[in-house]
Amino acid sequence: MCEPAYSVAGGLATLGPRALEIRDLLEGRFLSWAAEIGAKPMIYPALLRTEQLSKVDYFRNFPHLAVVASRIRPERLEEGYAKSQGLLPAVPREDLTDGTFVLPSAACFNIYLHLDGQVLEQTRYVTTVATCFRNENEYNDLRRLWSFTMREIVCLGSPDDVKAHLVSFKEKIMAFAAAIDLPLTSDVASDPFFQPQSSRAVMQKLFPQKEELLYGDGLAIGSLNFHRNFFGERCDIRAADGQHVFTGCVAFGVERWIWALLDRHGDAERVVEVLGA
Amino acid sequence: MCEPAYSVAGGLATLGPRALEIRDLLEGRFLSWAAEIGAKPMIYPALLRTEQLSKVDYFRNFPHLAVVASRIRPERLEEGYAKSQGLLPAVPREDLTDGTFVLPSAACFNIYLHLDGQVLEQTRYVTTVATCFRNENEYNDLRRLWSFTMREIVCLGSPDDVKAHLVSFKEKIMAFAAAIDLPLTSDVASDPFFQPQSSRAVMQKLFPQKEELLYGDGLAIGSLNFHRNFFGERCDIRAADGQHVFTGCVAFGVERWIWALLDRHGDAERVVEVLGA
Repeated sequence: MCEPAYSVAGGLATLGPRALEIRDLLEGRFLSWAAEIGAKPMIYPALLRTEQLSKVDYFRNFPHLAVVASRIRPERLEEGYAKSQGLLPAVPREDLTDGTFVLPSAACFNIYLHLDGQVLEQTRYVTTVATCFRNENEYNDLRRLWSFTMREIVCLGSPDDVKAHLVSFKEKIMAFAAAIDLPLTSDVASDPFFQPQSSRAVMQKLFPQKEELLYGDGLAIGSLNFHRNFFGERCDIRAADGQHVFTGCVAFGVERWIWALLDRHGDAERVVEVLGA
Repeated sequence: MCEPAYSVAGGLATLGPRALEIRDLLEGRFLSWAAEIGAKPMIYPALLRTEQLSKVDYFRNFPHLAVVASRIRPERLEEGYAKSQGLLPAVPREDLTDGTFVLPSAACFNIYLHLDGQVLEQTRYVTTVATCFRNENEYNDLRRLWSFTMREIVCLGSPDDVKAHLVSFKEKIMAFAAAIDLPLTSDVASDPFFQPQSSRAVMQKLFPQKEELLYGDGLAIGSLNFHRNFFGERCDIRAADGQHVFTGCVAFGVERWIWALLDRHGDAERVVEVLGA
């Protein structure tokens, strides 16, 4: 009997050996691209400070996405929290502390927050991967998960360097997709990160800054994002000339790549063959 | 100028390229040990259902450890949550939903919960890695983090198979540690997972079931845990003969290994050299 490569329930995925083999091959490819441009691999904290995120308009633009981390209040613990319980369907909100931390909804926030106040002597490339979380109205297989894996390759520097980064990665990804017979189209997108009424969404319409790489019926498995100097300003990251840096990220939704490859090639063995070739 | 391999603030670590190289070499070793015994590599959901965890006495035994995940209440979002904010130090608990999910405090819970109600035709070996979270009173460098990486290699089967698993891994780890000149001692431990007054802690004293592998002044970088049939019963996982399975896990605290290796060998280059030899 052939075991499925993965299973999904309630927006949460469990990846088995064959899905992990595909993930590792994809990650190997993304990391080799990152190495080609000298991007520093980094792993950042799994929790972000609420206050820091509010500095980049997080709670103004997408409070609905936020998965908030808190804990059981010490007073409740001291009162003997553990004693009276059988099955506990939820920790009631009265028992929780305020949410001073949030789980990341994208991998690259940490990069900008980590460089807060710094001067970069030259254009900086950084790559990171993170387990990301977004509350959605509906979940759908590996296509739309509550918790998923995002690999990003980020450029921080002059507008020209950032644009060149995004252009060259679009080429790399499209050539790779062609080589593994994964048909992709690209489309300028409105960023679902931003709430329709927000100032950023308005800016997004004036200067389209997000391009999505779409598989099949419009599944974005990658995106190229030009943030202008938004994060440079908010996090006070400056270039050697004293100007706030521009930033741009290339983002890969790892589980979506796995879904698209399985959809295209039928089974995991074939996907591994194609990726390994 | 030599950049540090990692930084830590508030119990949260940021790992740079050299720390990640050490991590990858360690993970390669742990995974090759897992492969030797045919352990299935798996990645499980990053959030656990509160109700499921309460089935294994989680909130009776260590409610203080729990990092609870919730979100901003839809009513508050509709009232215009985003509008009035400047810097937001915390999401007030009145704005949060009840905590129906919790972040894992150990990697192996998911293994037992995932096999809930199943019959295993033969002894099963599974390996997984997870970002784990534990609220502590104090944090200390990579030695005691709020959020850290745990690799586990688990056996589910007869008492003898589980004991043999733990004995053979103790040997493997001790031989490896000797080969990389990392002096370890072992000690039977009281499980810090369990609150002093809990029924499990009492059982722990009657039948010591946890052995820790200690570096230096008593830093547990690995542990061998014999759970008897606790998870087999609570999750109704049975062997072919109808009995609830026994379980045991070998756990590696990845950041603690990194800390110990850096402490022992002085710098990351030397650690990479030693691990790569």
